[in-house]
Amino acid sequence: MSDRPVITALETHDVRFPTSRELDGSDAMNPDPDYSAAYVVLRTDAGVDGHGLAFTIGRGNDVQTHAIRALERFVVGANTGDLGALYREMVDDSQLRWLGPEKGVMHMALSAVVNALWDLEAKIQGKPLWLLLGETSPEDLVALVDFRYLSDALTPGEALEILRRAEPGRAERVAALRAGGYPAYTTSPGWLGYDDDKLRRLCKEAMDDGFTQIKLKVGADLEDDRRRMRIAREVCGPGFRIAIDANQRWDVASAIAWVGALGEFDPYWVEEPTSPDDVLGHAAIAEAVAPIKVATGEHVQNRVVFKQMLQAGSLSVLQLDAARVGGVNENIAILLLAAKFGVPVCPHAGGVGLCELVQHLAMFDYVAVSGSRDDRVIEYVDHLHEHFVDPVVVRDGRYRAPEAPGFGAAMRPESVAEYSYPDGPVWNGGAP
Amino acid sequence: MSDRPVITALETHDVRFPTSRELDGSDAMNPDPDYSAAYVVLRTDAGVDGHGLAFTIGRGNDVQTHAIRALERFVVGANTGDLGALYREMVDDSQLRWLGPEKGVMHMALSAVVNALWDLEAKIQGKPLWLLLGETSPEDLVALVDFRYLSDALTPGEALEILRRAEPGRAERVAALRAGGYPAYTTSPGWLGYDDDKLRRLCKEAMDDGFTQIKLKVGADLEDDRRRMRIAREVCGPGFRIAIDANQRWDVASAIAWVGALGEFDPYWVEEPTSPDDVLGHAAIAEAVAPIKVATGEHVQNRVVFKQMLQAGSLSVLQLDAARVGGVNENIAILLLAAKFGVPVCPHAGGVGLCELVQHLAMFDYVAVSGSRDDRVIEYVDHLHEHFVDPVVVRDGRYRAPEAPGFGAAMRPESVAEYSYPDGPVWNGGAP
Repeated sequence: MSDRPVITALETHDVRFPTSRELDGSDAMNPDPDYSAAYVVLRTDAGVDGHGLAFTIGRGNDVQTHAIRALERFVVGANTGDLGALYREMVDDSQLRWLGPEKGVMHMALSAVVNALWDLEAKIQGKPLWLLLGETSPEDLVALVDFRYLSDALTPGEALEILRRAEPGRAERVAALRAGGYPAYTTSPGWLGYDDDKLRRLCKEAMDDGFTQIKLKVGADLEDDRRRMRIAREVCGPGFRIAIDANQRWDVASAIAWVGALGEFDPYWVEEPTSPDDVLGHAAIAEAVAPIKVATGEHVQNRVVFKQMLQAGSLSVLQLDAARVGGVNENIAILLLAAKFGVPVCPHAGGVGLCELVQHLAMFDYVAVSGSRDDRVIEYVDHLHEHFVDPVVVRDGRYRAPEAPGFGAAMRPESVAEYSYPDGPVWNGGAP
Repeated sequence: MSDRPVITALETHDVRFPTSRELDGSDAMNPDPDYSAAYVVLRTDAGVDGHGLAFTIGRGNDVQTHAIRALERFVVGANTGDLGALYREMVDDSQLRWLGPEKGVMHMALSAVVNALWDLEAKIQGKPLWLLLGETSPEDLVALVDFRYLSDALTPGEALEILRRAEPGRAERVAALRAGGYPAYTTSPGWLGYDDDKLRRLCKEAMDDGFTQIKLKVGADLEDDRRRMRIAREVCGPGFRIAIDANQRWDVASAIAWVGALGEFDPYWVEEPTSPDDVLGHAAIAEAVAPIKVATGEHVQNRVVFKQMLQAGSLSVLQLDAARVGGVNENIAILLLAAKFGVPVCPHAGGVGLCELVQHLAMFDYVAVSGSRDDRVIEYVDHLHEHFVDPVVVRDGRYRAPEAPGFGAAMRPESVAEYSYPDGPVWNGGAP
């Protein structure tokens, strides 16, 4: 332990990409996002660094960056040998807890820092994170989780049982990932604002590229959605999975009516039909729109809300996000909850660096938690990967298993410099 | 409209009181709070200013202050003649929304700014806020509310009906408030860390001062809680209302067991038994501990969670907070929801300036929404009021109706200067 690298500094960067200058990333609730990262680097005395980020869509990325700085006191000089204890020390800090608890800006900051600690640890161990976690014993994995507020749905004993059940096949599944990767779906055809020809072309390309599922943004205009769904279904044919995503646009009754009006086009899941806080609303929608599945998670704030969504039958596809809840530790809890309830996890990605991050969590889930890739796909958006040191590799509609040590959030220093807000050359000191 | 004061600047202050140097304010989850305010002043060109704050308990107050600054662009030079529209413009800003949505640091910042706008408006109108709102027409009140995500529980039409039903008796209730005030309860005897003699003395003083309810913090040690409850019940006698407050300490099963073990002392309500995010957990606890009531709200993030808690029977006392949800506008929605479900609102107070703020909301509720003071009490803690320009006046166990124009959040400039962090003389540049 004594010769482990010691964290000597926590460095933050407000990095923003001017994506609102195009229409990519535009949906019913987010018409003009500037995809951004509150980016954190943990410097050590050994030349190895840990990288993490919170994804935002522009304004407020400075607030997010400032919140990450509030966690500096916990990590500089800290003992990083027990990341379960260090995570709990941060999440339980009574004064910072008041700012959530465990939600919003402060929790996303925690996420960035916890993920950077895991990136550092994986680099120290010389392994990609999915493999590091996939080789960790069930007992040690359980020790990483904060079970507070979970015990009515999942106890440490049940978690251990889930992990032990998946232990025998770990090595085979690691080999299967290295050989065949992990299935992906693409949102690229589905952004609002694309004309019909572009939609048609992108649907065709998605199929040609080997994807077995696409997703369309909906919720701004029903007739427009019906036309776009009709085109997508024509191009993709019956049986091909087409998900729809409303980005929280509806109230409960309008969600049920709108999804009903798209039912003839056989959507596979409806994503974020209403407020991510509305456990009971999602449950009512899920009951009404079945057999169309309800999917949500990118804005679900923490494990307590996921717990309830599973208890209430609010979702049948769980879309964890790598950088909204409290980082790797809380996502292990969420993967365990999903496994307990038998619900497949299909991570949210896109944004800045989310694809790079979530692939590790999905692959860990396959190796050591659920043990399955059935009905599981990772979102893929072909966007901004060039800014990362180890960008994802998606081929034939599948994420290739990453082999570089770490968690994937490291950005290229040139990109950080160029897109730093407001002083990088792209922004030139200008307002967003 | 053209000669309304124009907001020329948004000014923020990080104000912290070193309350952790004593034991006041210590509970099972918050052992050493430094009660703090991220304080905002809206300056106008007419010499009248608007004041608001977000309450925190120390570390992170700088993050909260920074978040308030992110809202500057919406209010400087803004049209403040339609506070429903201005509120919605801020809450719907698509980029900032990503940081919540409607929860945590960014939402508390919104609260501070929205409340400052209302403080300004009440000063322009020359009325205390409770009276300004209490004289606003039902139609105009409904226009202040964002009904998004509420329509499965409360429609604008239903809200209008509730407000119209309460319209006839408004003038009598205004007179009743001016004559008799609004009932309060006190938490002063109940902090952890007081010895038995102090507890006994403070219980006696609370009764002598005319309070008809007290509250004890519990949840750190069961035998200690039983001893303190026994003493309080002895001093106060049977039938006197003694609430208990666990500050989110328990899981569902431990909450039920712990409250059961205190049942012989007849607690009136149990407050924050578990995570404020756990709608279903609160419902399970409420069912198990009845007829003891479940109270919660000081950490409930927004109207969507309150909606569900009312739908699920999670609470029978709703404790709104003036500065956690989106300010006056969202609290009007919450008061309407409570009225729809027939649940009494007993606001959370204490902290910094929360008593000064919530009295206006409770009195407005009595005048124009629920029309009742039955089973309704405002929390009172005799703490830090000396720092406010118009401190609350509590006599004979009742809040006197404030008559000064505004919403009550204005702090004394000397206090702001003295307690500014980290450069005020009290802090002397030192770490918290």
